[in-house]
Amino acid sequence: MNFTVGQIAELVGGQVVGDAGLAIQGLCRIEEGAPALLSFLHSDKYFHHLYTTQATAVLVPQTFQPEKPAHPTLIKVQNPYFAFNILLQQVWQESLASPEHEQPSFIHPSARLGKDVYVGAFAYIGKDAVVGDGARIYPNSYVGPGTRIGAETILYAGVTVYHGCEVGARCILHSGVVIGSDGFGFLQTPGGESIKIPQVGNVVLEDDVEIGAGTCIDRATLGSTVIRRGVKLDNLIQVAHNTEIGSHTVIAAQAGISGSSKIGSYCMIGGQTGMVGHIHIADRTQVGAKSGLSKHITEPGMAYRGAPAHPLREQLKMEAALRQLPELLQRVNQLELLLSRLQVDNS
Amino acid sequence: MNFTVGQIAELVGGQVVGDAGLAIQGLCRIEEGAPALLSFLHSDKYFHHLYTTQATAVLVPQTFQPEKPAHPTLIKVQNPYFAFNILLQQVWQESLASPEHEQPSFIHPSARLGKDVYVGAFAYIGKDAVVGDGARIYPNSYVGPGTRIGAETILYAGVTVYHGCEVGARCILHSGVVIGSDGFGFLQTPGGESIKIPQVGNVVLEDDVEIGAGTCIDRATLGSTVIRRGVKLDNLIQVAHNTEIGSHTVIAAQAGISGSSKIGSYCMIGGQTGMVGHIHIADRTQVGAKSGLSKHITEPGMAYRGAPAHPLREQLKMEAALRQLPELLQRVNQLELLLSRLQVDNS
Amino acid sequence: MNFTVGQIAELVGGQVVGDAGLAIQGLCRIEEGAPALLSFLHSDKYFHHLYTTQATAVLVPQTFQPEKPAHPTLIKVQNPYFAFNILLQQVWQESLASPEHEQPSFIHPSARLGKDVYVGAFAYIGKDAVVGDGARIYPNSYVGPGTRIGAETILYAGVTVYHGCEVGARCILHSGVVIGSDGFGFLQTPGGESIKIPQVGNVVLEDDVEIGAGTCIDRATLGSTVIRRGVKLDNLIQVAHNTEIGSHTVIAAQAGISGSSKIGSYCMIGGQTGMVGHIHIADRTQVGAKSGLSKHITEPGMAYRGAPAHPLREQLKMEAALRQLPELLQRVNQLELLLSRLQVDNS
Repeated sequence: MNFTVGQIAELVGGQVVGDAGLAIQGLCRIEEGAPALLSFLHSDKYFHHLYTTQATAVLVPQTFQPEKPAHPTLIKVQNPYFAFNILLQQVWQESLASPEHEQPSFIHPSARLGKDVYVGAFAYIGKDAVVGDGARIYPNSYVGPGTRIGAETILYAGVTVYHGCEVGARCILHSGVVIGSDGFGFLQTPGGESIKIPQVGNVVLEDDVEIGAGTCIDRATLGSTVIRRGVKLDNLIQVAHNTEIGSHTVIAAQAGISGSSKIGSYCMIGGQTGMVGHIHIADRTQVGAKSGLSKHITEPGMAYRGAPAHPLREQLKMEAALRQLPELLQRVNQLELLLSRLQVDNS
Repeated sequence: MNFTVGQIAELVGGQVVGDAGLAIQGLCRIEEGAPALLSFLHSDKYFHHLYTTQATAVLVPQTFQPEKPAHPTLIKVQNPYFAFNILLQQVWQESLASPEHEQPSFIHPSARLGKDVYVGAFAYIGKDAVVGDGARIYPNSYVGPGTRIGAETILYAGVTVYHGCEVGARCILHSGVVIGSDGFGFLQTPGGESIKIPQVGNVVLEDDVEIGAGTCIDRATLGSTVIRRGVKLDNLIQVAHNTEIGSHTVIAAQAGISGSSKIGSYCMIGGQTGMVGHIHIADRTQVGAKSGLSKHITEPGMAYRGAPAHPLREQLKMEAALRQLPELLQRVNQLELLLSRLQVDNS
Repeated sequence: MNFTVGQIAELVGGQVVGDAGLAIQGLCRIEEGAPALLSFLHSDKYFHHLYTTQATAVLVPQTFQPEKPAHPTLIKVQNPYFAFNILLQQVWQESLASPEHEQPSFIHPSARLGKDVYVGAFAYIGKDAVVGDGARIYPNSYVGPGTRIGAETILYAGVTVYHGCEVGARCILHSGVVIGSDGFGFLQTPGGESIKIPQVGNVVLEDDVEIGAGTCIDRATLGSTVIRRGVKLDNLIQVAHNTEIGSHTVIAAQAGISGSSKIGSYCMIGGQTGMVGHIHIADRTQVGAKSGLSKHITEPGMAYRGAPAHPLREQLKMEAALRQLPELLQRVNQLELLLSRLQVDNS
């Protein structure tokens, strides 16, 4: 980034207190301030950093008044956190590849590419695939035959989207993501061998979905595995065939969602959580890390934890009780002893 | 797919009841029937869908008699489930890449390729590698020097098989699979630093093995990590060096198998299960999801669950008891109180 | 490998007892000895294999005296384990790609490559990237714009290092590794939707780091995610943004490290362990497999296990007590019964 303090104030709708002409070349945390960098102050407990930071400029709340002279130029804004996020967005945009077709790449003659598309070297766009305006297909990525990639969607290096899948607009797929691999479905012979059930459905990602590095989403046996609008998945998550993840649900790293599960909207699922197949999770459910869900959750907005998972309050009681269990054993030993003496006394 | 009902009946060995000339272009679940699609009915509880589905044709059991007039043409077969699977197979085959060499690809002059092989763009076939007849090496896949890929095996886009490994016939490796990465072996210096133990063995996959997206199988230190015939591994599984997985064993997503473990044949291992190194698991063992195995299992055909894992029945008792633990604490408090009163009374 | 016994003795600083002219073409475990192979004997319990092995030569301790005539030529060394590791190193070196630039590859004109670099086919070296002397960038790997790869570092096939990251010297990154993907950071709107916090920091790997297949390390929001010198990460590990892993720490497969955590030096973290964000783990902490850490660990050198994790001794007591819990329930039932009888007697 290469702005003056004044240009930045304009970008975020703020007022400059100090020298608006200073140059800003990057962003930093307040503790790591350095010349030509801009930071932000959001909460009271960080305000004291203002008087020692080497940052050139700092976003502060509208109402903020320094207690003593401070070196940085201030930019007063309504919400420094949101304003800083606009600047992060700016820096991030600058890091993205420009629309061009690097060589060699493979674009099937029947594929249709929108305008301003980036196709990196060694990217593969298959037969009848469609790539929307402004999309970015980084090097070594694969867009299978008949697959559709929405406008302004990013496939970072080494993403694979199998044939016949649909990715919405403004999605971000990180490196190593696999979309549309076969669901894990087999018929067992009487002898215990597995006969493949071919998986001929697909995967549909709606708009504004972000998928973390190494996450795998299997295609449906028939029909679609569906990831609804605004869902955010972290790294190394497993999403099995024929599942549906409701809009704006957020799932942390290394969680595993088994086949034909249906997760509601606005849920938050902790890392390394597992879920058996064919269960429904109500909207706005919160699940703690490392949980194991094996039953439907029908009431929306509840918190669960544990493996097997219980309502959070119940689980916390169990965990607390468990810590007392070794002592409890001693106490019961003691009770038995006392009682046997009493019985002797009474006999 | 593009068949008449009559052609399909022939394919699955069934009898048409209705119009054999109707066109079928795809398959569907009975609940999602639509014109030109074919579905199947397998169990009583779905039979009622027959009278409302829009599907053009439905596979039904030989003995099935509709209770009232139904719109779809019927195809009577011995086992609708298996017959439907033959049709899924047909659709799936149509989705596979045709044998051709897309450009650019890298085929080392010393590599030997069978006939009817698909080599996708940006696929790499290393020095002295061998690829069997009818194999498919999709774009961005890597077959290392000296590696052998069996006939009719599929490496989907972005699969890596390191040097010197062996993959059998009719295997399916999904995108992101890594075969032959170094086992995690180090010598510790007295100071606690790690010196790499170079891993110079390999990985052997026998015939008919399927490996899910993102699963990693490390090469042996010496000798081979071996995945026996018919094994099916789901996505994002870790298989460490020098392990052996017995024939027809099935392992669900995100399980982790530590080094030098030996898993028997026909086992079923649940998702997110972990296993310490150097243990043996008997044939036909069933392990529940999220379990942690740290000991040998010597008796075949037993079920285990939990972390640490216990025999299933024992584990279920423990889990049930655990739910009663907070209440048990209260009860013991009460017992102690009552007993102290009794003692006072008795004293 | 292709050496005489005498050449090998020289390589490892040992003395030959037997025929120094015999040819050695490979290495093996003593149980799997075969002609032209060399093995080693390290501990007493394996010594009996010497008299039956078909290996041509065996490394033995300086002080070792065979109890009876043995077929293999012996090479006496101070530490057979370390000596054998030198030979493994030799075989491994032979398996590495030679310095050459395979075609086609993509090297941006502004990128700077050291001497003796291997660039595999379909490897991508971005704008302003720097690759050190003797580094190896295998096929289908991606070195993003502005990224630096240290001398003698190996990126195996299909590794992705995003823009602006730094990888030290002598690092090994296995296939499927992703370095520099976006941290999982979002602002929640009042309505529960997620607004991306762009991640504009980077990842820094210091020297001598090894990263297992499929492991993902996210870039920092601001600043750096840092992996210190000598760290070894196994396969399929998740390392979130802004974490720091201390020097020489070893982490087993499928562990997950949440954002802004700080792990000390010389720690050993078991497989499938999870860690919440923003916690500090002291140096030399040992964490058992499948643990869940949610609190700071401030005392160095302690062992922890369980989810939630407790000090190892405490955890073992809890696990032992838990196995007695179903019986404890019976005992408390019995106590209540006896006590109620006593009370009746006493009333």
